[in-house]
Amino acid sequence: MLTISRYQEEFLEYLKSYPFKKEPKGLYAPMHYILHVGGKRLRPVLTLLTADIFGGDYKKAMNAALAVEVFHNFTLVHDDIMDDAPLRRGMPSVHEKWDLNTGILSGDIMLIMAYRLFEDYEPVLQAGLIRLFSKTAAEVCEGQQYDVDFEMRNDVTLPEYLRMIRYKTAVLVGTAMKMGALIAGAEEWETEAIYDFGLHLGTAFQLQDDYLDAFGDAETFGKRIGGDIVENKKTFLYLTALEKLDEEDALLLRNLYDLTPADTEEKINTVKDLFVASGATELIREEIRQHTEKAFESIASLTVTEEKKEVLLEFGKRLMNREV
Amino acid sequence: MLTISRYQEEFLEYLKSYPFKKEPKGLYAPMHYILHVGGKRLRPVLTLLTADIFGGDYKKAMNAALAVEVFHNFTLVHDDIMDDAPLRRGMPSVHEKWDLNTGILSGDIMLIMAYRLFEDYEPVLQAGLIRLFSKTAAEVCEGQQYDVDFEMRNDVTLPEYLRMIRYKTAVLVGTAMKMGALIAGAEEWETEAIYDFGLHLGTAFQLQDDYLDAFGDAETFGKRIGGDIVENKKTFLYLTALEKLDEEDALLLRNLYDLTPADTEEKINTVKDLFVASGATELIREEIRQHTEKAFESIASLTVTEEKKEVLLEFGKRLMNREV
Repeated sequence: MLTISRYQEEFLEYLKSYPFKKEPKGLYAPMHYILHVGGKRLRPVLTLLTADIFGGDYKKAMNAALAVEVFHNFTLVHDDIMDDAPLRRGMPSVHEKWDLNTGILSGDIMLIMAYRLFEDYEPVLQAGLIRLFSKTAAEVCEGQQYDVDFEMRNDVTLPEYLRMIRYKTAVLVGTAMKMGALIAGAEEWETEAIYDFGLHLGTAFQLQDDYLDAFGDAETFGKRIGGDIVENKKTFLYLTALEKLDEEDALLLRNLYDLTPADTEEKINTVKDLFVASGATELIREEIRQHTEKAFESIASLTVTEEKKEVLLEFGKRLMNREV
Repeated sequence: MLTISRYQEEFLEYLKSYPFKKEPKGLYAPMHYILHVGGKRLRPVLTLLTADIFGGDYKKAMNAALAVEVFHNFTLVHDDIMDDAPLRRGMPSVHEKWDLNTGILSGDIMLIMAYRLFEDYEPVLQAGLIRLFSKTAAEVCEGQQYDVDFEMRNDVTLPEYLRMIRYKTAVLVGTAMKMGALIAGAEEWETEAIYDFGLHLGTAFQLQDDYLDAFGDAETFGKRIGGDIVENKKTFLYLTALEKLDEEDALLLRNLYDLTPADTEEKINTVKDLFVASGATELIREEIRQHTEKAFESIASLTVTEEKKEVLLEFGKRLMNREV
């Protein structure tokens, strides 16, 4: 087992040296750009780490880890077009730096490249990896579609919201880990346990993201506080608050989400007060706690050494404390 | 062996009954729409027919045929966005009927669905099919990129143009057929021979498309004559004419391609005269003849019955006569 930062370094080295095609430039340069513009590489690190946890060799998991990272970046390129986002990790997004057509087509080639990265696994393993990958890729698209749909809907339910973030974020975390387990030759029940670990940890992480977006510290969170509120995003906090507030306050909250005032500070503060008063703030913390706990329970029965389980627990804790 | 129209019917029946997902609607409805809006289904028919040619069972080739068709329609959805095309097969294109974001995301899910259609083949065959599919998918994207690049370039060469149409059109025809051969368990040299047949036939077909765009009959061609000329497309005819014309006429042609006049008739006629005078019209007919011949030569050494070879020849002839 290596340390997290060592896995990150090894992965970055592999990414840099991987012989991706370069021509035609208009197609491949955006892929190189977005893949090298940064990011914490958490998903590929999880693939490598999980391969080692189950007694495999992380080096054998490199191509799968890279596939997960290339796929994740494909979703960023296409999502940034859909969200009209000018920046990604502080740099111009692909469709901003180039143009719309380049964003679409270079995204497409990245999805294809992700599939090609499984080609060198022996056929039975490859079929298993690709089946898992395709299922997850479809779910991620479905999650993005739900997210888009929710913007236009006023009747989104909490279970629908939870499904959306599970598809959009958590399944790829579970899949990244399950791939490592598959490559290490783990038993089926073990691959499912580690998938559940990633799924719950990913859900907890995304819910925490929602929480920190309203109540975090701008410095450590790395984003402007209140962004979701300004964009009238129907997050866990909003949906829970609507459910728990009395009629009058619920109406006030709904009305605030129909506005985009020039001065956003007052709106942010009023909404945050409603989140707290409704109990939504407490409820999301409880939901985060439960998913974190479920993640840890998922791996309790694994027969790997306590030391290895400790690595997973430590990773989970550091992730939730935003230290990785 | 069935007749071409019987393969078409069988394929359409399979397509209609295939249990594609339906929810979320915003994601899957555009896929159903574009897959059912028509088209001649030539590529999937070639997959089925080739499976039978090599002694396989076309029914076993159905999922691969469907993958080829879903992939082809994915390229149409994304290309229509890039080309800003409002119509596809006489109906609103996906991004017109819905919107840009729907066009991007439903295209993405179609690419993923195409891959999923290989899941039920046994692992070794599946790995071979997916490797071929991915290579071709990447080439199709590269072809589209070259096509986009050519719009901005004034130094496109004929070999570059031929590579572009090979990638954008011909490789998928070759791949559709090779998949049928792989599924039938044909020898490697046979799968390559049939790939070459499709590759040359696809190239001949696309070149003929260029030719008919200028010199065809609007009624039978099904498109407005002179479309490529109006859009200043650097086709085989244009590039060859530039090469063969004297300096003065070449300059005239170049200048005509810098204009988009309100009255297009005069431009179309002048350009067509230059195509004929330069010899480009004769040269493209010769190029088409050569690719058709190479296609037929590719299958000469196959050990399948003469009757089966005759089916391929007949299909090739009918395709070039635009009778299928």
